[in-house]
Amino acid sequence: MGMHPVVYESQSFGELLKFLEERRYQKIFILVDENTEKYCLPILNPFIHSYEPVVIKIQSGEDHKILKTCQVIWNQFLAYNANRQSLLINLGGGVIGDMGGFAASVYKRGFHFINVPTTLLAAVDASVGGKTGIDYRSFKNHIGIFVDPQAVFVNPVFFESLEIRQLKSGFAEMIKHGLISNADYYDQLSEIQDFFNVDWPNYIDESVKIKSKIVDEDPNEKGIRKLLNFGHTAGHAFESFSMENHDIPLLHGEAVALGMMMELDLSAKKLGFDETEADKIKKYLQSVFSIRKFKQEDFEGLLNFMMQDKKNTNQGINFTLLKEIGAGVIDQFCSKKEIAECLQAFIDRD
Amino acid sequence: MGMHPVVYESQSFGELLKFLEERRYQKIFILVDENTEKYCLPILNPFIHSYEPVVIKIQSGEDHKILKTCQVIWNQFLAYNANRQSLLINLGGGVIGDMGGFAASVYKRGFHFINVPTTLLAAVDASVGGKTGIDYRSFKNHIGIFVDPQAVFVNPVFFESLEIRQLKSGFAEMIKHGLISNADYYDQLSEIQDFFNVDWPNYIDESVKIKSKIVDEDPNEKGIRKLLNFGHTAGHAFESFSMENHDIPLLHGEAVALGMMMELDLSAKKLGFDETEADKIKKYLQSVFSIRKFKQEDFEGLLNFMMQDKKNTNQGINFTLLKEIGAGVIDQFCSKKEIAECLQAFIDRD
Repeated sequence: MGMHPVVYESQSFGELLKFLEERRYQKIFILVDENTEKYCLPILNPFIHSYEPVVIKIQSGEDHKILKTCQVIWNQFLAYNANRQSLLINLGGGVIGDMGGFAASVYKRGFHFINVPTTLLAAVDASVGGKTGIDYRSFKNHIGIFVDPQAVFVNPVFFESLEIRQLKSGFAEMIKHGLISNADYYDQLSEIQDFFNVDWPNYIDESVKIKSKIVDEDPNEKGIRKLLNFGHTAGHAFESFSMENHDIPLLHGEAVALGMMMELDLSAKKLGFDETEADKIKKYLQSVFSIRKFKQEDFEGLLNFMMQDKKNTNQGINFTLLKEIGAGVIDQFCSKKEIAECLQAFIDRD
Repeated sequence: MGMHPVVYESQSFGELLKFLEERRYQKIFILVDENTEKYCLPILNPFIHSYEPVVIKIQSGEDHKILKTCQVIWNQFLAYNANRQSLLINLGGGVIGDMGGFAASVYKRGFHFINVPTTLLAAVDASVGGKTGIDYRSFKNHIGIFVDPQAVFVNPVFFESLEIRQLKSGFAEMIKHGLISNADYYDQLSEIQDFFNVDWPNYIDESVKIKSKIVDEDPNEKGIRKLLNFGHTAGHAFESFSMENHDIPLLHGEAVALGMMMELDLSAKKLGFDETEADKIKKYLQSVFSIRKFKQEDFEGLLNFMMQDKKNTNQGINFTLLKEIGAGVIDQFCSKKEIAECLQAFIDRD
């Protein structure tokens, strides 16, 4: 796991073409949704049309990351005689990569897939870690396996068509990588001013290295991989609450940014994280992400979502927190009272 | 693959109990069908009821080895909070093992399973090789992965309730193991007279060793593993034809026995397998399996099934054949004409 190459292209697709020439797959499939079909396929296709790829189109969004959509994909595999000498190219964000990776990996007991992430979030996060899968009866990623793509081809040309919110959603995960394990990297990221003028591959590469190192040590998520959960325990609660209550729900990275803000307070309380430093980071996060404020009336709902995060721990939750910038610590038990206090302070913030 | 232990119990379940004590799983599930619930669960349950296993019951038979049945299993996993510290015990034949192994291995990206085969066929064949999966739109094992059980516990007590036809169906695969790679083993098997008075574990162990050795060399079925296909190319045609045309269709092993008979003729023709020897083996197979004769009017249908076996080879098929007893050879191309001749001789036999 985590040992597959992540390679960086600039404008053209020289690396991808080299890969295809070497591997000599018998048939190539490309998985897209209506968005990547419109904005990304026209960029990729001229380079690979000589391979006569079969394009499989599914509907975009987490709502469609389900068994029914998998069957749409499998039916196309059947119709075009996919076999173990086939290749699937996942052209899209996290949903496309997760579902395509799973669909290919269980078809005839598995054929190869590669990811061409079209969002910054997918490039820094979903590219590494070997997690594939689909949602099942509204439980996220409940059916899936750990399996790596043969390679990931990151081409920043796709990020040019992303909205600023989407771009920043990926950026939040990068900030997390700095905060949990590399203070220098965090410093570099926090100096970025113009999000439309960034040498992304340079930064993505550092994030990929951090995540790969952690995942390699703990591929099946039994220990140290929990480091990656920083910001996510509170973040998932904000994300779920927002999904149910807001007209324009928070993006994943926005929720994680909020989660990191609250979990910085918990870090100060539980691990003695420097409070001045914590305030500085929180102000920075607040400035980057134009983040919605939660209201006092949201308090109960948010706390409920937070306490549901792990099963069988009515008395509290294990968080991943920070001792200092660049030094995350897993399995930090926080009582419901401590969580409630930090949530209240979070809602009350300026 | 193939490295998991296959252990043999006699009457009690000492090995299984030791395994459960060591592993300390948080929750145990048992997958059964209506037959193994009635005949096998009452034998196993007294030993493990203190673990309060959750019994999941599905309908027996290949017809139910489908996605819909998987969802029945997953729904029970959900209802009883299965997680990565859970264990699934597959109590049954090939269908239970294949489907249960797949269902557990993709639930929350996989939890452990063990097989307790209740048929001789499952004990000698499905126990080794890491193949799990389900049928998809009537394509056999089209959705699945390669993954091994943590262990296989073979207890011959279950074979006592098998009908003789079922017992012999497993025996056919054992004969195949001897023919492709161990002449001594074939000799030993051919001396068995009373099928209800056999020290099965002793023989099963040899079959498991032969299959494990082959699978270990070629876990993803790219070369030498095709040795195991001896008797199966023709056999699958007999099996499919019988399924469509006979009131009481051939069992898998019966079809394989027929397939071996016909492929012995091909072996004589293509690899110079000794004809006297071939006749002797064919007579032996005929005597063990009370095998249905095919009629002249079945010829076209059988040949059609046979030619469908592999895609894109209208001119012929690659068989696994024998050079001598104990020496199988893969990738032996036979033309449609050669296949038709042997099929005709097979139908015409005494």
